[in-house]
Amino acid sequence: MTTSTLYQHGTLALMVPGLLAGTMTMKELLTHGDTGIGTGEGLDGELIILDGIAYQVDSFGKVNQIGPDFTTPFASVHTADFKPLATVKEILTQPDLERLVRNKTRWANTFFAVLTRGEFSDVTTRAVAKSQKPYKTLAATADQQSIFHQDEVRGTMLSYYAPELFDGAAVGGFHHHFLSVDHDFGGHVLNANLKTGNIDVQQFATLEQHLPVKNADYMNHDFSDDAIHDAIAHAEH
Amino acid sequence: MTTSTLYQHGTLALMVPGLLAGTMTMKELLTHGDTGIGTGEGLDGELIILDGIAYQVDSFGKVNQIGPDFTTPFASVHTADFKPLATVKEILTQPDLERLVRNKTRWANTFFAVLTRGEFSDVTTRAVAKSQKPYKTLAATADQQSIFHQDEVRGTMLSYYAPELFDGAAVGGFHHHFLSVDHDFGGHVLNANLKTGNIDVQQFATLEQHLPVKNADYMNHDFSDDAIHDAIAHAEH
Repeated sequence: MTTSTLYQHGTLALMVPGLLAGTMTMKELLTHGDTGIGTGEGLDGELIILDGIAYQVDSFGKVNQIGPDFTTPFASVHTADFKPLATVKEILTQPDLERLVRNKTRWANTFFAVLTRGEFSDVTTRAVAKSQKPYKTLAATADQQSIFHQDEVRGTMLSYYAPELFDGAAVGGFHHHFLSVDHDFGGHVLNANLKTGNIDVQQFATLEQHLPVKNADYMNHDFSDDAIHDAIAHAEH
Repeated sequence: MTTSTLYQHGTLALMVPGLLAGTMTMKELLTHGDTGIGTGEGLDGELIILDGIAYQVDSFGKVNQIGPDFTTPFASVHTADFKPLATVKEILTQPDLERLVRNKTRWANTFFAVLTRGEFSDVTTRAVAKSQKPYKTLAATADQQSIFHQDEVRGTMLSYYAPELFDGAAVGGFHHHFLSVDHDFGGHVLNANLKTGNIDVQQFATLEQHLPVKNADYMNHDFSDDAIHDAIAHAEH
């Protein structure tokens, strides 16, 4: 299995009008990697996949290990082969961390992953509650998110970076998910300061973009009236 | 080799500021498919790949078979597995043909290829002349294109369709290249009417987007000031 490929099922854009059916199982997704992020059917929580195990942070803040039949409308996975980038001994805010990674890698024009492990402070995450069919739009669903906070927490932040050209297919720029080492806290990161820890990175030469072509709702949807980029800026950044 | 994957090397966007170095050989490209389109280093003509053989229409209108060491900044290939869509017995303009394909497939939200073989009329093509380093922008280079015309010609039109979400990475909508059966005429299609012939199609579930991460000019370029979508609309549509 190549370690220079990022595999993505679905697009961020398809969630904007609420095309939230789970169109790939975890079993199939994990054939494409052992590390990743995503969400469940109906925006059922925030997923983080580490060492081949998929965890869901649900809208109650609970961390659940999810099984092979759990389905996702949108997820990114790859096979971990991270290289050390930096050891951090003084506090980095989230913008500091992103700036450090950008400056030390100079990888702005390709996809890459960042794995940050250590002691964090002032970590704020969100997790979305599952909605049922007929699904609401991404904006309406994201407005109902739960927010969680830890002043001090040891954990792992997994981040993907996509070039701005691919904003809409993926999240342009950085997209971070978090899981505490105790598996009692996590989600989509709204803020996180790294106090001490290690930052590892992995570059991809290839995006393998898979689309849910067997899903009639997706295939028949007219995206021309969806303000994709505005909705994404509202919900994901 | 999967027939549900479209492989793309480079992006349309990288050509906008003139990042025209040949970053993949035909030898390597053809490991990803036997059918495709593209251009050469410095926008060296218009490529069409049929049955595993790569042809270049140069700026003199000459059709050249190109060898394994020929390099490309941007090309799309796949392994042919077309299915019949329609047999045409009365004249279709290019917009008619695109409309027919859209309506009969309903595949607007995924990538697909169209192979049209038959008798064409009023075919106008263009081919760009190779530029040397320092390469000009896509707009400046495309303004120096040569135009060719045939009133009646028998040949093959190979077309790729990309969802609008991917405009900039690929050409959003349809992108057509042509080669006459006599191998004496072809290029990027500006107009073509199909008089009689067969239209075959092939759907892709996956775009395998490969980026030239070993090319320093590409990796170090700041795309934020390039008006990518405007430049593409000018040059490719």
